[in-house]
Amino acid sequence: MTVENSLSFLFNWKALPYHAPVLIAKHLNYFKDENVNVMILEPTDPSDVTHLIGSGRVDMGFKAMIHTIAASTKYPVSSIGTLLDEPFTGVIYVSDEANNFQEWKDISILKGKRIGYVGHFGKLILDELMERNGLAPSEYEAIRVGMNVTQAIKDGTIDAGVGLENVQMVELEQTYKGVHMLRIDELADLGCCCFCSILYIANDNFVKAHPELVASFMKAVKRATDYIVKDPNGAYDLLCKISPEMDTKVNKEIYHRSLVYLSKDLLNVERDWNKVTNYCKHLKIIDQSFVQNYTNEFV
Amino acid sequence: MTVENSLSFLFNWKALPYHAPVLIAKHLNYFKDENVNVMILEPTDPSDVTHLIGSGRVDMGFKAMIHTIAASTKYPVSSIGTLLDEPFTGVIYVSDEANNFQEWKDISILKGKRIGYVGHFGKLILDELMERNGLAPSEYEAIRVGMNVTQAIKDGTIDAGVGLENVQMVELEQTYKGVHMLRIDELADLGCCCFCSILYIANDNFVKAHPELVASFMKAVKRATDYIVKDPNGAYDLLCKISPEMDTKVNKEIYHRSLVYLSKDLLNVERDWNKVTNYCKHLKIIDQSFVQNYTNEFV
Repeated sequence: MTVENSLSFLFNWKALPYHAPVLIAKHLNYFKDENVNVMILEPTDPSDVTHLIGSGRVDMGFKAMIHTIAASTKYPVSSIGTLLDEPFTGVIYVSDEANNFQEWKDISILKGKRIGYVGHFGKLILDELMERNGLAPSEYEAIRVGMNVTQAIKDGTIDAGVGLENVQMVELEQTYKGVHMLRIDELADLGCCCFCSILYIANDNFVKAHPELVASFMKAVKRATDYIVKDPNGAYDLLCKISPEMDTKVNKEIYHRSLVYLSKDLLNVERDWNKVTNYCKHLKIIDQSFVQNYTNEFV
Repeated sequence: MTVENSLSFLFNWKALPYHAPVLIAKHLNYFKDENVNVMILEPTDPSDVTHLIGSGRVDMGFKAMIHTIAASTKYPVSSIGTLLDEPFTGVIYVSDEANNFQEWKDISILKGKRIGYVGHFGKLILDELMERNGLAPSEYEAIRVGMNVTQAIKDGTIDAGVGLENVQMVELEQTYKGVHMLRIDELADLGCCCFCSILYIANDNFVKAHPELVASFMKAVKRATDYIVKDPNGAYDLLCKISPEMDTKVNKEIYHRSLVYLSKDLLNVERDWNKVTNYCKHLKIIDQSFVQNYTNEFV
């Protein structure tokens, strides 16, 4: 192992089944075949990710599009590819038996409720959603829960929480009937859940200094992605071998529910970037001078 | 959050109950009280840890004493304190019902067996142990299993594996009767398991540039350690709140079995360093010019 051909890669969350392309590329020596040594890290607080990559402490990683755009105002960070295309994201809640597990008709039911969010930008999205629906921040309680959205719903700390259809909903479905989502794209008239597309991101200085390592990395994860697409069941079995924690009913379900979102070509999608750029301007996360911070040159 | 008062901290393993001092110091804002922002990371491959800290990618972390000493030959890395004092470490195996779950009488029974180890230095220790007992590397199969020691024993990939009394043995005891350990300190006549003491380590350049952050960090984890020692059950409940994954029977047992090893004063122990220095020289990991790479100035 040499310092020269190494790079560190930080997940956006504790290791999840949808991180399969990187875990499999490492395990099957696809990175080694491209002469790049990849050291994979997991965060304890997902809100640290853009800071760690932005400050140059970590070279590359995964992060949602909205955070990647927001990070550009503080750090030299860009997207170099897409892992998941617009996974459904929204306010997740469990309806109870008394109402036959009915869905809430209207977001206004969140009035007076405790709503969990992961970090700073989740709160911005939530507040704007509520404002659209005539609810001021004083009319609900927003609670920062980091990675513990599912657990906080289960133990009653929150009544609802912001999460993904292919992760937190699956986790709750193991325990409850009547798990629902108020989708943010619908509530906020976005036309897609692309603000939550999970991207491959990198520190710009690292990319400038080591373009060949970035290209090698992307070539290896493309090869792993092709493998997953061709043999999803075999790839899941391999994932369980790599990490025994993946070998559970809930993770098998998360894996299969995530496949539909998996980007096959790893490209950043211009249409999605334009939509999210507008959304971020609306949220005042960026101003008119923003230049889209993505490239497809390594895909 | 500013770049200036931030530091990144990498665990030696996926998050475990014995990492409580750092997790609790973060959760109870002890770090914030000392004006230091700590971003906690977990490795996917424990063998990456000294490289990540040594190359300056990560500022600080946890690592066993033997790896910390070995790292000094390649990187500017030192120990600045102790987390766990000499946890029992050895070759763990499960005896079967046919022999009434009897312990193996002799390490020679490992002849012809498949033995799992975590990474490079585990292999060196294992080979030297076997050599002491007259077994050449060709007479057993050493298999690198990373963090999957427990799973590899359970699924039959290996017959025995190198692990800790307070982690892998506990994990196996959830499934099997007759879980035993051939202790390395006894087999190798070490007089302590201090080669596996888990240390707080740091990149020397980071320490030189930010001694005040290192001191703040250690002050906060000392405060968290005091809290754990004073109220171990309350601290465990808090740990489960911080990370729901900790709230399992096996992690509760790992937590309680680890408490006995928890260093109360966080000091590097000179006697232990001398023993392990000699052991490392014997293993040819270091030569006579080695200068012990630890300090107690921040404790």
